[in-house]
Amino acid sequence: MSKTVKQVIYSEFGDPTKVLKVETAPQQPLAAGQARADVLRSPINPSDLIQISGNYGVRPQLPAVAGNEGIGRITEVAEDVTGLNIGQLVLLPAGTGTWRTEIVASAGAFVPMPEGDIDQLSMMMVNPATAQLLLTDFVDLKEGDWVIQSAANSAVGTYVVQLAKAKGIKVACVVRRESAVAELESLGADAVLVDGPDLPQRVKQATGAKMKLALDAVAGETFGRLGETLDVGGTLVNYGAMSGEPASMQAGVMIFRDVRVRGFWLVHWFERASKEERMATYGALTKAVATGTLHAPIDRVFTLDDIHEAAGYTWAGERSGKVLLAPNGI
Amino acid sequence: MSKTVKQVIYSEFGDPTKVLKVETAPQQPLAAGQARADVLRSPINPSDLIQISGNYGVRPQLPAVAGNEGIGRITEVAEDVTGLNIGQLVLLPAGTGTWRTEIVASAGAFVPMPEGDIDQLSMMMVNPATAQLLLTDFVDLKEGDWVIQSAANSAVGTYVVQLAKAKGIKVACVVRRESAVAELESLGADAVLVDGPDLPQRVKQATGAKMKLALDAVAGETFGRLGETLDVGGTLVNYGAMSGEPASMQAGVMIFRDVRVRGFWLVHWFERASKEERMATYGALTKAVATGTLHAPIDRVFTLDDIHEAAGYTWAGERSGKVLLAPNGI
Repeated sequence: MSKTVKQVIYSEFGDPTKVLKVETAPQQPLAAGQARADVLRSPINPSDLIQISGNYGVRPQLPAVAGNEGIGRITEVAEDVTGLNIGQLVLLPAGTGTWRTEIVASAGAFVPMPEGDIDQLSMMMVNPATAQLLLTDFVDLKEGDWVIQSAANSAVGTYVVQLAKAKGIKVACVVRRESAVAELESLGADAVLVDGPDLPQRVKQATGAKMKLALDAVAGETFGRLGETLDVGGTLVNYGAMSGEPASMQAGVMIFRDVRVRGFWLVHWFERASKEERMATYGALTKAVATGTLHAPIDRVFTLDDIHEAAGYTWAGERSGKVLLAPNGI
Repeated sequence: MSKTVKQVIYSEFGDPTKVLKVETAPQQPLAAGQARADVLRSPINPSDLIQISGNYGVRPQLPAVAGNEGIGRITEVAEDVTGLNIGQLVLLPAGTGTWRTEIVASAGAFVPMPEGDIDQLSMMMVNPATAQLLLTDFVDLKEGDWVIQSAANSAVGTYVVQLAKAKGIKVACVVRRESAVAELESLGADAVLVDGPDLPQRVKQATGAKMKLALDAVAGETFGRLGETLDVGGTLVNYGAMSGEPASMQAGVMIFRDVRVRGFWLVHWFERASKEERMATYGALTKAVATGTLHAPIDRVFTLDDIHEAAGYTWAGERSGKVLLAPNGI
């Protein structure tokens, strides 16, 4: 009897708690140059759910296996493959559908990783790189400069705090509920504020600073409030819309304060970054994550069979950390 | 009996139709190095009214004479002044309060102008330069590239059409009422559309083009609609908020389409432009306006005594051109 794999697929775009199905498929044979890996952990990123809903910047061909990143362990390599051994911990190829028990791909598409906390390493590809590039790709920040960010208790947000602190950059964190304040303070955030109409005034009182860079993943009115905290010529980067509202800002903030607005999408960065830039970015981050100096809180780990509950729980937003899938058991 | 001047002043910020007063003041004697000019025409720019309301990027010290630009004719020069003669047509010094019958300033602050249509020349300082810099300061436009703009029937909007056409750049014009369409078509606009929720789709149908640059002076939802017409990596420049609403845009436009947002304020440009840049910009524009190859429609000309009616009429927005003041008679 041939072995089978379990995978989470969708054949139409829509509500992830409805369109996702768990199916069993025959194990795929290895072709020349390929390797096989067990998927150990794969995160549920909000962007994965947006992609399944059909509202993402790219739409996969359907039916598709869901999931865009994860960590695995090599279980088999084709005879002609060198430099990749059974038992090696690897980052799974990006965008190949990682919510499944095993994955077969070109051996070169697996990125060998040092041993470490597999929960933390499973989130390596998307969130730490996003946080790092948000801090480096838009404004030349110097020690003592201030950055402000919304959705600060997200995985990206907590990485931003850690990466900024390591560079001597001060961080003001904006969250949407009081219960998220304490953890960010313990991470070393220089100010933590609950969002509200008078946010710009409270930021000024709490920090006495004009921000050089604002990072927003909430949109709605939060977007404009962050803009108002910026110094003349400051930059506001949006990378998400957790509020579900359009981003809005008073025109005077752009006109009189010369605030510049940009968007960030990791996919665009991959398109334009050289191999050297990618290696430099991921090399340093991998070391930091593997050694535990860079980490994000984990809220819950689900099996593939509980994918509907896991997706609903991720989207509800009252989490205190990341939601992960453990396709081969927790 | 000493001569007097008439001037429009305000002693508090607020509704221009309420706070503006017409007063008579003694004529100011000439000091060394100064010159005196009769004010022939001075435009009422929407930004002047915003400044009087107290919502502008800079607030003058009160009481202040209103008005920021205009054209005049030299009536007297101090004995030590050379290079400026009685009868010379001049651009009035910027930001000195031009809604008055005469103005006294340092001779060097008056810019000698060629004879020409004084209505057109009176608007020289603000609107043509704004239009020119909107087209040159943000995106490197080549012949055949597309630009889209809202408030296209404004003075800036009509200058943009003329300047773009002269460079072989195609212009899509967005207006808020059907009655504004014909004039823009006769000016050579490549497409003219009335704003509405489906604007992005209609722009695509009408032009088949992806815009490289979008210019917005309306804000509100129009801002986001213009953003949706842009090509990946395109730039959206806001320079006004005629709708009175905050600028709003779907986050996906920034994230997935990499649309960049900037603001434009002529005051910032003056702060950073070199004398050579200023001369180059204004030299070419002056020639074009004086010879009539660049012009904006004039709606009505008022005297200083009718300033309340003039301000109310300017703000109401159903104009078909600029409103000017003629302090020394029409």
